[in-house]
Amino acid sequence: MRLDNLTPFYVMQILKDASKYKDAIHFEVGQPDLPPTPKVIKAAKEAIERGHFGYTSAEGLEELRHAIGKHYKYRYDLSIAPERIVVTPGSSGAFLLAYALTTDIGQKLAIADPGYLSYKNFAYMLGIEPLFIPVQEDTNYCITPQHLQGRKIDTLQISSPANPTGSIYPKELFQELTEYCKKNGITLISDELYSGLVYDGAFTSALQISDDAIVIEGFSKSFCMPGFRLGWVVLPPKLVKKARELAQNIFLAPPTIGQYAALEAFDYPYLEHVRQTFQKRRDTLYGLLSPLFDLGAKPQGAFYIWADVQKYGKASELAKRFLEEAHVAVTPGIDFSQSVGEDFIRFAYTIDEEKMREGVARIASLLG
Amino acid sequence: MRLDNLTPFYVMQILKDASKYKDAIHFEVGQPDLPPTPKVIKAAKEAIERGHFGYTSAEGLEELRHAIGKHYKYRYDLSIAPERIVVTPGSSGAFLLAYALTTDIGQKLAIADPGYLSYKNFAYMLGIEPLFIPVQEDTNYCITPQHLQGRKIDTLQISSPANPTGSIYPKELFQELTEYCKKNGITLISDELYSGLVYDGAFTSALQISDDAIVIEGFSKSFCMPGFRLGWVVLPPKLVKKARELAQNIFLAPPTIGQYAALEAFDYPYLEHVRQTFQKRRDTLYGLLSPLFDLGAKPQGAFYIWADVQKYGKASELAKRFLEEAHVAVTPGIDFSQSVGEDFIRFAYTIDEEKMREGVARIASLLG
Repeated sequence: MRLDNLTPFYVMQILKDASKYKDAIHFEVGQPDLPPTPKVIKAAKEAIERGHFGYTSAEGLEELRHAIGKHYKYRYDLSIAPERIVVTPGSSGAFLLAYALTTDIGQKLAIADPGYLSYKNFAYMLGIEPLFIPVQEDTNYCITPQHLQGRKIDTLQISSPANPTGSIYPKELFQELTEYCKKNGITLISDELYSGLVYDGAFTSALQISDDAIVIEGFSKSFCMPGFRLGWVVLPPKLVKKARELAQNIFLAPPTIGQYAALEAFDYPYLEHVRQTFQKRRDTLYGLLSPLFDLGAKPQGAFYIWADVQKYGKASELAKRFLEEAHVAVTPGIDFSQSVGEDFIRFAYTIDEEKMREGVARIASLLG
Repeated sequence: MRLDNLTPFYVMQILKDASKYKDAIHFEVGQPDLPPTPKVIKAAKEAIERGHFGYTSAEGLEELRHAIGKHYKYRYDLSIAPERIVVTPGSSGAFLLAYALTTDIGQKLAIADPGYLSYKNFAYMLGIEPLFIPVQEDTNYCITPQHLQGRKIDTLQISSPANPTGSIYPKELFQELTEYCKKNGITLISDELYSGLVYDGAFTSALQISDDAIVIEGFSKSFCMPGFRLGWVVLPPKLVKKARELAQNIFLAPPTIGQYAALEAFDYPYLEHVRQTFQKRRDTLYGLLSPLFDLGAKPQGAFYIWADVQKYGKASELAKRFLEEAHVAVTPGIDFSQSVGEDFIRFAYTIDEEKMREGVARIASLLG
């Protein structure tokens, strides 16, 4: 059956187990603890007061697609026609749309290992064959054309900044990959959900390199709106018509109140405050964890640290010990990697500095 | 490619074209014009004030699943464990989940023609083969075991009350179908999204017949919350674990504010007011359209009338004329049927009585 290889989020069990401990410290949660800008909150209330309870069009409110287009102008000086944007129920919806549109049954989707778990599970659901590309520190956890050489691939999924490693695709690599994809008839999908949370190095969007790339983004991370369930996908013009037709059928429309709220999400001073908050936390947590684990280079974006814990044993057993003995919840690497999952633990810095200090202190005392 | 056979909602073009006319009368809109109960609106605002901006668990808030369970107790005196309920992003999400869970690539999904367009398009996306069962007035547009006899079928999708015909599956037929499915190893999925809008005859839920049935429901129609994008699916216990794992991966979670709002949706006096409003409108519109078209029996539920317009010509051309010459928007049957789509038009009674009278008067004068 299509779902035989489906894997659950191990972190969900951790979350559930952690709820037993009132003093638990949560390094496992993949969502910001900061609220959205007050402007979003106000707009959400107003949408309710104005009675916006009906469906919007399947591709999302025209004003919101314009606002997203303007965001690309502001951030990258790029002109993206609102027609190329489809607003989706979370970026989850954007992946479903992008994979179904581009990749046929039996075709191959290349994804990085380690990487976000759902990529492969979307593939299984859609009858697409995931092809795992093991990436390591030597390429800053990025997929390079050398990784792809000689392999039959239909679609390439990259992530920048990446979950769980926080690494960013540099412009030159993006150019090389784009060229390789073009030459080999590969569709390039770039997950840029964490692009608003970049701390070091220049972030490049796939859209700056090529209009053929499919870019996935959303309001859940850097805009601090996870529960609103709103994402978007930017498509090459040739895919737009089919994308809208598919969205009508499989989503009907994205959530309405959230869309009106999201019109106010592009509050750049607030977004910069969010970014700086996470940057400070990254620096703190990196400093705190460095004496304990092998961390490699500082992650450049997102809100995770991917820690090599090999010297202490198997990651899943270690995560269990952290939780049961120190009431510290972390995500074992098996949620992100088939190859090295038992060597790594992911720490999310989605809690305040005080809690991070307390959590790491507990782990340190446990590890002796 | 998987989407080669995908068909768009023709009604979307109608909606777009209708926006040109300020005085347009809308019989094409498949969503209630009534707001949700004031309790829902209040709860939505409170959810925002309380800062419920994070993800919920993938299967939805535990309180909401309890409330839905209680709803089955209230409506049908059925005990449905909250564990068997998964809250989804719209009932659209429930279909995706149900089809992906039950029906493998290359397997066959039987659906009624006429029927809701998205069933077949979900099937195409998932590599499932839709098998169209032409149904007519002789069975009140219901699929019977006689329709299925001798055909290889893996999953049977029925709808009660049905869109576009408003017909309801009687208890005896449900029992026969359930028995047939059991004997032939067929999964039964029952779309009961309009079950709160039943006017004549006793409505039976598939869950009253068998715990093996998969039932799809949602807050978009009888609860008047379409833009909140919330549905649910009731699953047999053996499918629950996989369903949660799949929901984690493909949805992450349903919208949060909407879930808190939906906790207050089971306001039965208000829901009865909604039901009565639509019943009165059905009676009015049926009376108004009867002299013009062949309507068959009065629809028992939902908010549509499926009118045979053959004597005036092709439905799609007629719909075009109605819009351009009388500024009346309707949905041509091609959105629901490959076999008889050009013989029927669907009228939705999601507008007030005055507008319905004006709209039908315009059509009548056009038809001479």
